[in-house]
Amino acid sequence: MKIVKAQDMDMKREVEYGSEEQNAAVRQIVADVKLEGDAALLRYTEEFDHVKLDAGALRVTEAELKAAYDHVEPSFITAISAAADNIRAFHSRQKRNSWMDLQPDGSLLGQIIRPLKRVGVYVPGGTAAYPSSVLMNVIPAQVAGVPEIVMVTPPATAGKQGIDPYILVAAAEAGVNEIYRVGGAQAIAALAYGTASMAPVDKICGPGNIYVALAKRQVYGVVDIDSIAGPSEIAVLADDSADPVYIAADLLSQAEHDVMASAVLVTPSAEFAAACQAEVERQLAELPRRDIAERSIADYGAIILVDSIDEGIAAINRLAPEHFELVVQDPLAYLGKIENAGAIFLGPYSSEPVGDYFAGPNHIIPTNGTARFSSPVDVDDFIKKSSVIYYSKEALQANGEMIIELARREGLEGHARAIEVRLSGD
Amino acid sequence: MKIVKAQDMDMKREVEYGSEEQNAAVRQIVADVKLEGDAALLRYTEEFDHVKLDAGALRVTEAELKAAYDHVEPSFITAISAAADNIRAFHSRQKRNSWMDLQPDGSLLGQIIRPLKRVGVYVPGGTAAYPSSVLMNVIPAQVAGVPEIVMVTPPATAGKQGIDPYILVAAAEAGVNEIYRVGGAQAIAALAYGTASMAPVDKICGPGNIYVALAKRQVYGVVDIDSIAGPSEIAVLADDSADPVYIAADLLSQAEHDVMASAVLVTPSAEFAAACQAEVERQLAELPRRDIAERSIADYGAIILVDSIDEGIAAINRLAPEHFELVVQDPLAYLGKIENAGAIFLGPYSSEPVGDYFAGPNHIIPTNGTARFSSPVDVDDFIKKSSVIYYSKEALQANGEMIIELARREGLEGHARAIEVRLSGD
Repeated sequence: MKIVKAQDMDMKREVEYGSEEQNAAVRQIVADVKLEGDAALLRYTEEFDHVKLDAGALRVTEAELKAAYDHVEPSFITAISAAADNIRAFHSRQKRNSWMDLQPDGSLLGQIIRPLKRVGVYVPGGTAAYPSSVLMNVIPAQVAGVPEIVMVTPPATAGKQGIDPYILVAAAEAGVNEIYRVGGAQAIAALAYGTASMAPVDKICGPGNIYVALAKRQVYGVVDIDSIAGPSEIAVLADDSADPVYIAADLLSQAEHDVMASAVLVTPSAEFAAACQAEVERQLAELPRRDIAERSIADYGAIILVDSIDEGIAAINRLAPEHFELVVQDPLAYLGKIENAGAIFLGPYSSEPVGDYFAGPNHIIPTNGTARFSSPVDVDDFIKKSSVIYYSKEALQANGEMIIELARREGLEGHARAIEVRLSGD
Repeated sequence: MKIVKAQDMDMKREVEYGSEEQNAAVRQIVADVKLEGDAALLRYTEEFDHVKLDAGALRVTEAELKAAYDHVEPSFITAISAAADNIRAFHSRQKRNSWMDLQPDGSLLGQIIRPLKRVGVYVPGGTAAYPSSVLMNVIPAQVAGVPEIVMVTPPATAGKQGIDPYILVAAAEAGVNEIYRVGGAQAIAALAYGTASMAPVDKICGPGNIYVALAKRQVYGVVDIDSIAGPSEIAVLADDSADPVYIAADLLSQAEHDVMASAVLVTPSAEFAAACQAEVERQLAELPRRDIAERSIADYGAIILVDSIDEGIAAINRLAPEHFELVVQDPLAYLGKIENAGAIFLGPYSSEPVGDYFAGPNHIIPTNGTARFSSPVDVDDFIKKSSVIYYSKEALQANGEMIIELARREGLEGHARAIEVRLSGD
């Protein structure tokens, strides 16, 4: 892991927009499913997943869901259920009420906050299927009050038929209402436009391969989509009160995700930097996903030496990391100075996996510097707001002339007259 | 205005993505400004706006701002200032606090809510420059606590030099901190990447022509952008308790915006429908923007006859209109049934222009059916959230094994070990 003195370190990586061929293929799939519905959905499922289904078999049955519980260890059920409880408790704190502001002139202004009606969650197949991601996408929607939460996932991955029972158990624990065995761009198109077997949704979320990502981008506007996540990142700001064994393990837990994952340590201590560097090497040698982590550390890892914790905080604010661990003496003294970070982990026991799996906050967090202006997934992502205006006759008569003035100034005489007819009305 | 019985009326219109040539031109402008900064900004300003500036003259001075007040009527200042106060009061109700949840095991979980640091507002030139839009874009950012709000607007429009004084007064009343005389795709690029004269922002909002819209789309990800608005819409659900003169005026106030604007009346009364139809014809004949309104009414206007108010509400929920006026006896009885509408206007005196200019709720509202899943602009559009996790040693020891179980299940041994080293630590 390279140690750099001055830091113009940048965690930004290129966003994947797909090739022209991939985009064209996805456009064709989306257009076909929009036009032909189930027929296209089943045809593409046979073509890409090598599974021949009829429309009646698309939906996963209650019996299959029950059977999944028999295929997973009780310790897994205990853990996923405890995680679901924590995630539910944390997100429940985010709920907001509709509100009304009553004016002395009898008018009433407000905002109505409602859940979306129907949400679709994409879950990739195979080793990219993470039960924890099912919880993190589904539970905020459920807490928001979304009455219909639909999951889609491929019927087979890499030649292996069937849906991972761990995913099914996670879906049941999270509160999914309907599950369909369909994946790829065709699943996204079915969620957006609906087919005879699948009613259309209002929003699609969840990770997927490049075809899924491109399909989501193409249907955006017809439905809402979540933001498309970049490779994962961690930045750790630690002083020599931290344990290099802990910090190295945390850096590697990020690096093992992906060769493009980024792990950065910022520290004012050259000694601590050297100790972490050695510890990363030592732990890396024993890591099952060593090949991935090694490339990630080489390409996107760094140790940045700074003159002070405050200079370190400034570096963090420039990076705007997805995950940020602050492991210094008196971390609370610095919390107010952190401007840009998706999730902030304080102190020696708040290892990133605590948040990835269990504590309650969402693990879907802005990447690639976008924590400067965006936020972890939460209940707000599954609600919509309507403004409400009830204007009294008294209010209109008191303010009508000012409204007319502003409308005429903008050359919109029709707007002015809509007020005027009411002023002269009686 | 055509009366239709069954309603498969659809307010949706095509979204404008620009031609390949327009996209290529914008890509070039954005790339040049990113690379060359002010030099490219000034070159494109000369090319497109026919105004030769040096970098020192880009920023509008305090003296110019003061002079603008001398060029506008006192009645305008009174009206825009009253509107600004109302908009500020309404948006102030939306502010939220950071929160912390203290756990019995000593852990602490929470969300930190902060304003974005710097926001750019685009204001088009010429007749497309609306003082009210300046308020509606700037004030929510200001209420959110954004410390730096920057406005950009072309230095000349249609050969006419200078910035409209009404826009400058609106900017001052709204609380803009910096104004630059620069427009088009070059202004968007400067906001996104910064130049020597203009520091980069975190988010760009505000309407513009197709080049501005394409530039915003291209820089999205580098900065946040607002959603790109479609043509404006109104749907009115009225029974025969309503006054056809009022309703016709409201439909026309929408239709005069744009030939693609949409105005729809839904009513259970054939008599009322006929009266509104006649009244629209009568008022249309006298409207200054008659040509625009006439085409809008012909192409995107309709009167939809329904069997009951409830059937009308169902039609509204399908349309998901930007603006919705509910002018029936006892409108409160139906408020709970409205699922999809950006802004809801209740009763005879809540004419849409009341909301467009004055009452306080934002007039930037989802169009084209997207009220199904999105919301009017508000303070939430100018904040970002960070999750905070402080996990105690006690909490990690109580839950560590479950976290390890979930990490191993996902094949992420590095994640498991980051917990394990802490459990065995002491």
